Amino acid sequence: MERVLSNELSLHVGERIHMAGWMHRIRKLGSGMVFVHLRDRAGICQIVVESPEAVASIDGLLVESVVEVEGTVVAEPQAAGGYELHDPAFTVLARVTEALPFPISKPVINAHLDTFLDHAMVGLRAPAKQAIFRLSAAAAHGFRSVLDAKGFTEIATPKILGTASESGANVFAIDYFGKKAFLAQSPQFYKQIMVGVFERVYEVAPVFRAEPHQTIRHLNEYVSMDAEMGFIKDHTTVMAMLTDVIRGILSSLADHCGRELELLKVDMPLAPEMFPTVYFPEAQEWIFEHHGEDCRNEPDLAPQHEKWLGEWAKQTFDSDFLFVTGYPMVKRPFYTAPNPADPRYSNSFDLLFRGTELVTGGQRLNSFEDYAAALEARGMTQEAVASYIETFRFGMPPHGGFAIGLERFVMQLTGLANLREAALFPRDMERLAP
Amino acid sequence: MERVLSNELSLHVGERIHMAGWMHRIRKLGSGMVFVHLRDRAGICQIVVESPEAVASIDGLLVESVVEVEGTVVAEPQAAGGYELHDPAFTVLARVTEALPFPISKPVINAHLDTFLDHAMVGLRAPAKQAIFRLSAAAAHGFRSVLDAKGFTEIATPKILGTASESGANVFAIDYFGKKAFLAQSPQFYKQIMVGVFERVYEVAPVFRAEPHQTIRHLNEYVSMDAEMGFIKDHTTVMAMLTDVIRGILSSLADHCGRELELLKVDMPLAPEMFPTVYFPEAQEWIFEHHGEDCRNEPDLAPQHEKWLGEWAKQTFDSDFLFVTGYPMVKRPFYTAPNPADPRYSNSFDLLFRGTELVTGGQRLNSFEDYAAALEARGMTQEAVASYIETFRFGMPPHGGFAIGLERFVMQLTGLANLREAALFPRDMERLAP
Repeated sequence: MERVLSNELSLHVGERIHMAGWMHRIRKLGSGMVFVHLRDRAGICQIVVESPEAVASIDGLLVESVVEVEGTVVAEPQAAGGYELHDPAFTVLARVTEALPFPISKPVINAHLDTFLDHAMVGLRAPAKQAIFRLSAAAAHGFRSVLDAKGFTEIATPKILGTASESGANVFAIDYFGKKAFLAQSPQFYKQIMVGVFERVYEVAPVFRAEPHQTIRHLNEYVSMDAEMGFIKDHTTVMAMLTDVIRGILSSLADHCGRELELLKVDMPLAPEMFPTVYFPEAQEWIFEHHGEDCRNEPDLAPQHEKWLGEWAKQTFDSDFLFVTGYPMVKRPFYTAPNPADPRYSNSFDLLFRGTELVTGGQRLNSFEDYAAALEARGMTQEAVASYIETFRFGMPPHGGFAIGLERFVMQLTGLANLREAALFPRDMERLAP
Repeated sequence: MERVLSNELSLHVGERIHMAGWMHRIRKLGSGMVFVHLRDRAGICQIVVESPEAVASIDGLLVESVVEVEGTVVAEPQAAGGYELHDPAFTVLARVTEALPFPISKPVINAHLDTFLDHAMVGLRAPAKQAIFRLSAAAAHGFRSVLDAKGFTEIATPKILGTASESGANVFAIDYFGKKAFLAQSPQFYKQIMVGVFERVYEVAPVFRAEPHQTIRHLNEYVSMDAEMGFIKDHTTVMAMLTDVIRGILSSLADHCGRELELLKVDMPLAPEMFPTVYFPEAQEWIFEHHGEDCRNEPDLAPQHEKWLGEWAKQTFDSDFLFVTGYPMVKRPFYTAPNPADPRYSNSFDLLFRGTELVTGGQRLNSFEDYAAALEARGMTQEAVASYIETFRFGMPPHGGFAIGLERFVMQLTGLANLREAALFPRDMERLAP
């Protein structure tokens, strides 16, 4: 008999059907009757267990036991979903006899984050946790769909590098057959190289950051959704593309994840057709004027500054997103293109989402001479980035791109308190398991 | 003016349009006239440069220079594509003045593989190389689409592990903030854990194998397309799913990559609705009978054996795919489910594609007791895999899955001589750059 999923019961009223899943809740009544909530990949439905034989067949089973069940579909307005299963006959596929590390059938999991993460193998089965990662999958899907439709080609670039890429700092070292190698901090160099091949490329893949700090908004391994495109006017072309990507992801979530958004009580972000934009030195002026903090000589924004700017964008422009453009060249990597009108500032941007940096991007240098000069100015050698800069000897158009942190996006979207909750099995300085 | 791509010329006959791209070929005639082939992300078109001013404006430019060009679209049956651009006015975006390491506009690249890989930054721009990686992107896309439609959820599992996963052998060690960690050989443990959450999961991500050998069909980093599903009858449920996935990928390539398949002269594989299947010991018998080689006591098949079997499948069943089931338990990892009828053999399979192993998969153990026994039988401790086996205390259905090597698939599909040609920037024992 074909297996029926919990969201398909309405198609089988009065029929004898076959289901399978986890015993999510088991409620025994004084009368001897048992209500079982069966969880499968489509949701949860209720099974009414009345006959003494059926009750006996599940006696001793604890929640998360896996069963097959044959039963009759009955319309029951009081049941969640409107239907339930009666007269069940169970086959036990996996018997659980130990209590869970913490209950997972409550709306909120009552466990310390560390305890949860230690037992994520089971904790992730909680419906609200599932919902977070279904949103995450849908966001990655949305990213790819939007870019596929715009002529981008997906690429897979190496994560093991012979030299310590971009900054040289904060990279993990590997023993590579007795040689020293490094884990990629980002696909930056490769996605630029691939603009020379496909013009428009993207990659959704893990990146590795050996940053030795423990914060609620950093992980040492995360999923980066990277895009890079050629034949741009300047960074504003990239910002327009990013705006389309963000709006495309959001509408794809709205279309496909209604159940998850509702369960997590997500306030869908305000994402106008054009995101408001503020130029870095003007943002600093505004902070000084409105919050009295003088950061006008700082080369970067602090988290509190981003928070103020995010509030301002929301109040003034009805937008949960705000572009900050023109970060000082001294704080941007060597491949960053300067603002031709004022080369102290860059043709780069951050996109703040609800007052937290979500995306970094910008225009890159594209002539070999500019790379040679930029490296020299920073005391870097051409040898260290030889393959990369060879690309620029052989014709590269004006280009730029951006990188969205997938976990960061999901954290800000769903209002999680800690980025670790947006990764299935997060990695930080202390955590390497599960 | 909006940029027009090279495959859109037919929509603009007689109009003055704006294009941009790379000077793919530059052919000077005795008359002083110049034919430029302009390459953009959509293809190649011809520009006829006649006026002395226009000829002078591109004087000294070598191939791969990047230009914008304004010109008039003219129907010209003799031109590739049927249209060309006349009366061009060029703007140079990037001037190339050095010869390429090797020419990239010929149908076949005349460079040693090592030379090619050293300069892949430029070599990948060759149309036939581009086509390989467009097929690769489309294959990954097809894999995800088929599984999305079958209720699978995409997951992102960690690549940095605290313990040396599955086999313990052939893993790369990382310095993780002074602790020793390892790169994931596969998402095996995590995808099984996630069956407990979503029932059906997949991941397309890099895996890392520290295998110290140099062959034409191994890489030390590659893209693994992994799937895992619960509530199976046995490995045959997984094989049926895999068959749908392979057929789905192939039809998605046929639908979306006609130009690439033609350029690479790909013989589309024969992929019948049911792939033929042979049981491991019977395959050995067949090899003995038909090729005189007695491998009946061997625990595995050698590449030559796979080749013979592949030829047999093609001749006998008109299939480029062949399942070999029932590999001996001694050669399969500890989580493999045995064949209940003969526990020397496993409920696992390989899928051969044109006589080479493409996919490995099978049914896994799903009870904690079976894991405990399997670990003990192999002299492994439960501590080493503590988080993983905790999952099986808390209810896991019968499940199984498979992993397809993306590069291997593309190599076999397109008939490449070396797996390195199917990776943008391959990693082997000797190669860490570019």
